[in-house]
Amino acid sequence: MARTRVHNLFVSLDGYAAGDHVTFDEPIGGARALFSYFDGRVISGVHGAPADPVTVDRALFAMWGQGIGAEIMGRKKFGPQTGPWPEDGWRGWWGEEPPFATPCFILTHHPRPPMEFPNGTVFHFIDADPLEALTQAKAAADGLDVRLGGGPTSVKEFLAAGLVDFMHTVTVPIVLGTGVRLWENPETLTDRFSLETVGTASGLTHHLWNRLD
Amino acid sequence: MARTRVHNLFVSLDGYAAGDHVTFDEPIGGARALFSYFDGRVISGVHGAPADPVTVDRALFAMWGQGIGAEIMGRKKFGPQTGPWPEDGWRGWWGEEPPFATPCFILTHHPRPPMEFPNGTVFHFIDADPLEALTQAKAAADGLDVRLGGGPTSVKEFLAAGLVDFMHTVTVPIVLGTGVRLWENPETLTDRFSLETVGTASGLTHHLWNRLD
Repeated sequence: MARTRVHNLFVSLDGYAAGDHVTFDEPIGGARALFSYFDGRVISGVHGAPADPVTVDRALFAMWGQGIGAEIMGRKKFGPQTGPWPEDGWRGWWGEEPPFATPCFILTHHPRPPMEFPNGTVFHFIDADPLEALTQAKAAADGLDVRLGGGPTSVKEFLAAGLVDFMHTVTVPIVLGTGVRLWENPETLTDRFSLETVGTASGLTHHLWNRLD
Repeated sequence: MARTRVHNLFVSLDGYAAGDHVTFDEPIGGARALFSYFDGRVISGVHGAPADPVTVDRALFAMWGQGIGAEIMGRKKFGPQTGPWPEDGWRGWWGEEPPFATPCFILTHHPRPPMEFPNGTVFHFIDADPLEALTQAKAAADGLDVRLGGGPTSVKEFLAAGLVDFMHTVTVPIVLGTGVRLWENPETLTDRFSLETVGTASGLTHHLWNRLD
């Protein structure tokens, strides 16, 4: 049974999971501080700083890629453009080696031809509601899990549609004051998910939400 | 910089990491209870129970395979035989799908031809001291990390030789009363390693040891 999973969704103490405005200079919409504790998607080697200690934070962040066969992401995670796509040569924030290495389905009202990369990443641009998008992503994932890559607006839509099986959120000990909320109150989820929480030496608090049967 | 890593080394409250006698019926030498909290090597899908919740324990156990290119293991991890190898057709505890999927170097005073498996596991039987074994394993790991797969006796030898970069030990809330110790006193390591500890809802305590520069 393949899962639909959310990983490394950082939330400020006051509940914001992204900034207000995404621009080329501010990929997370002015909420860069949310990612200041992020030390990569693998516990050792390949990416990031392999000489750095292997911490509990890193082990939990590294769930991100395990058993994942496809990703779904909101348009703003791919780029700051709005409306019809300009002919600007933009291929995402990540250059020619996007970290995904799987098919990725980008939700947009402006479909366009896919973009392929040598490491197996393929960006598909689809105009679809959450259930249609998930159906396409599951077909592409070849039995593996589908990751919802964010941002918080698209995660909220999948939560509202009851399509999220697992979610890893991380409370970062900062206050942003403004931005995009993942929820008005996390307690609205506790009737549908079990919650395991662990604090680490860095000051982060990790929340693992597993959907109840 | 590739690391040499130890993962999922379970230790009882009274300090035992394996039982006294390994037999065909008792692969962990009567200390099976040490593994009673172990729920697999991946966080989702493929192995284990994909419908079970994704817990902090599981995320930490799943560091096991990430960025690993080769394993070194003691002979007793491969089988209960002692002395020259009998012609018994034994190919390890795991059948025809060993979970390693990499070259594995088995420390024995009785070298023999390697055994290959369809999933990429190859068992090499070598008579080597820790440094020689690690040199061979690193060459086979192709730039990825080397895992020391245990048991505790071989981990102790690599620790004594100063060859361990990272170690994940797990204190299991049981008392065994007898068995093989990983150390007489874990404090003998604290001058050479930083230590991060986290307790989880299951009652396990995870210890992440990173070698100090």
